[in-house]
Amino acid sequence: MRPIQHITLPGGFVASAGTAGMKPSGKPDLALIASANKPVATAVVTTSNQVIGEPIRWVRDILPKGCGKTRGIVINSGNANVATGKAGYRDAETMAKLTAKALGCAKEEILVASTGIIGHKLPMEIIRPALVPLATTVAKRNDQAVAQAILTTDLIAKTAVVRTKIGRAKITFGGIAKGSGMIAPSLATMIAVVTTDAKISPTNLKRALKEAVFGSFNAVTVDSDQSTSDIVAVFASGEAGETIKPNTAGWKKFLAALKDVCGALAYSIAADGEGATKVIRVQIRGAKTDAEAAAAAKAVADSPLLKCAIHGGDPNWGRIVMGVGKSSAKVDQDKLSCWIAGHKVFAKGRPVKFDRAAASTAIVDSKDVLIEADLGLGKGKYEALGCDLSHAYVDINALYST
Amino acid sequence: MRPIQHITLPGGFVASAGTAGMKPSGKPDLALIASANKPVATAVVTTSNQVIGEPIRWVRDILPKGCGKTRGIVINSGNANVATGKAGYRDAETMAKLTAKALGCAKEEILVASTGIIGHKLPMEIIRPALVPLATTVAKRNDQAVAQAILTTDLIAKTAVVRTKIGRAKITFGGIAKGSGMIAPSLATMIAVVTTDAKISPTNLKRALKEAVFGSFNAVTVDSDQSTSDIVAVFASGEAGETIKPNTAGWKKFLAALKDVCGALAYSIAADGEGATKVIRVQIRGAKTDAEAAAAAKAVADSPLLKCAIHGGDPNWGRIVMGVGKSSAKVDQDKLSCWIAGHKVFAKGRPVKFDRAAASTAIVDSKDVLIEADLGLGKGKYEALGCDLSHAYVDINALYST
Repeated sequence: MRPIQHITLPGGFVASAGTAGMKPSGKPDLALIASANKPVATAVVTTSNQVIGEPIRWVRDILPKGCGKTRGIVINSGNANVATGKAGYRDAETMAKLTAKALGCAKEEILVASTGIIGHKLPMEIIRPALVPLATTVAKRNDQAVAQAILTTDLIAKTAVVRTKIGRAKITFGGIAKGSGMIAPSLATMIAVVTTDAKISPTNLKRALKEAVFGSFNAVTVDSDQSTSDIVAVFASGEAGETIKPNTAGWKKFLAALKDVCGALAYSIAADGEGATKVIRVQIRGAKTDAEAAAAAKAVADSPLLKCAIHGGDPNWGRIVMGVGKSSAKVDQDKLSCWIAGHKVFAKGRPVKFDRAAASTAIVDSKDVLIEADLGLGKGKYEALGCDLSHAYVDINALYST
Repeated sequence: MRPIQHITLPGGFVASAGTAGMKPSGKPDLALIASANKPVATAVVTTSNQVIGEPIRWVRDILPKGCGKTRGIVINSGNANVATGKAGYRDAETMAKLTAKALGCAKEEILVASTGIIGHKLPMEIIRPALVPLATTVAKRNDQAVAQAILTTDLIAKTAVVRTKIGRAKITFGGIAKGSGMIAPSLATMIAVVTTDAKISPTNLKRALKEAVFGSFNAVTVDSDQSTSDIVAVFASGEAGETIKPNTAGWKKFLAALKDVCGALAYSIAADGEGATKVIRVQIRGAKTDAEAAAAAKAVADSPLLKCAIHGGDPNWGRIVMGVGKSSAKVDQDKLSCWIAGHKVFAKGRPVKFDRAAASTAIVDSKDVLIEADLGLGKGKYEALGCDLSHAYVDINALYST
């Protein structure tokens, strides 16, 4: 079978996966995504949780402004290296150092990300010997194994490819992500890596990433919980021609493509929410600002009551109204209108007669349920992505650490 | 069987229950709690959701400052009278008017509360004829039926009695409450009524209630969702002697007793959380302020991941650390320590070796699991009350409105 490329599809990138043995399943648990031969523009966004993993500390130390030039990122799954103190920081640093040595760069040019259980020391005795082969086989570009190696409770590998043309340059984006539970604004137990062959400065890449994250990864909420280890990293090799600069037509196309790849990965995360059977897409419009629309959309998407209702095929619009009302967005209930799966259920503060059986069927039959609310107050809009709440979520999370 | 009194135990109060027929079960769905013969000091706290039920609007209209003198409160269950527009407001007003007429007072002296499904017009054709008998039988003081009549998805009636002595006066407090799902800061799908024979001005009663609610009803969270219909009302008949004033020894005792009765009712609500098998008591100390401690405590108690872990007997302290870290309280992970069911699991940023099997057994065997965290930053403290997340929560809420 011909290997399917995504993360190494843009020119200038290589990637490999390895197995240290941190997962009981024995599946791959190490991944390296790197530029083939030189430092490249890099931008990161990390968790807003005040408790952070040691790899996050390492990344913030080597990229204090959230951008710069690096060679790549080494990722392990099975252990998050959180609450492991100075020894944990040294372990993250060692992961960077050994990878850097094998690639022939400085340790400060290697980002580190870890995901998995919190509070256990990294088993360096098994990671250490697996890192060198990881780096020496990086030219193999076994992208599918890389996408698998970063997963924890995820059921499916999450990948995306987006192409665009900017001027004469054909630009490619590739992305992989992991994330399933503890997914919430802002970010999630989420690791996402995006590569592109576009030519762009680290500062502009950071600016574009920040804008793309607002409407994609930050829009995903599985359970309102927020991980200590979230990171989104973007690498731009510059192999595909013209320099992308703000306030140009090219910038808009670059941003749109980056949003597309981040959006596709974010959607995959919502769809693979722990125990999820459906994606819930909450579109808010008519808010005073986009930020207020985001607050309202996330409040609805986070509501356990709404999540249960959608799980059960219940067009219970009261829970949309409640969710919008409890959010920090300004709401005037007499201007509020709502739709469930295309059925108008609430108009300017009053319920609307609707075909309940048809709405219920539309929910049950759909893998992607659209909830809309118009606050009737302004032009702010936002789409949050959530999922339903099922028995399986409870089962997955009732006995995770034991 | 001798009827058990609570809400009419303090001197000067009467109460009755009735059945209009709003519940499919045919159980009582109307309750009236009133002072026997005169307007009494009254204070209320209502929901902070921006979408509110029409009865809440009525209460705010007759008590714009949240306190005053009234005769009592009429409550229906089975229908929340929310999103019902001007007609809904008139229905709430009519409930007050008919009750007032039968009691011989002004309609502005009758509070109204409704709980149940959102968005359906009150069936006034069956409520109307049931209201007069409710008022004319109010001297019956059938407290147990009253406590039952305000319930919706609750499994058990929630009542409390507290006695204290202030100076020479023997003061009695009685309380009833309902609330099971959509329970979250601030307040919940919660109706609580407290009566006391203490003598206190409406303004001082409001002040005391506000303080008591912070540590009791506002500390309860079942699912982070917040109802449009919450109300806590306190009535003080003044029949038990000396006037209670702030900054006196009597004030402290009054406040302590009011906190006790509110605390007992709040605990009952957490224990009866939809699908709950355990109460989770989250005690935060060492926060910069009590308000920050409250934010951290509620973030932990609200965490679906922690709730699942406790349900499964999993001493997963990572989820406490994550919950504290995502809250708005200032956190320094190197000063953070945590305990689960009495087992120290995390000390100043590092995991502690603990007897995992014993901690798990302690969780499984307890109906009331204590989670503690010391932020190590100040003197702020707070206890939030939550419950675990089970399959039954999903089942109850997946098909509520159909």
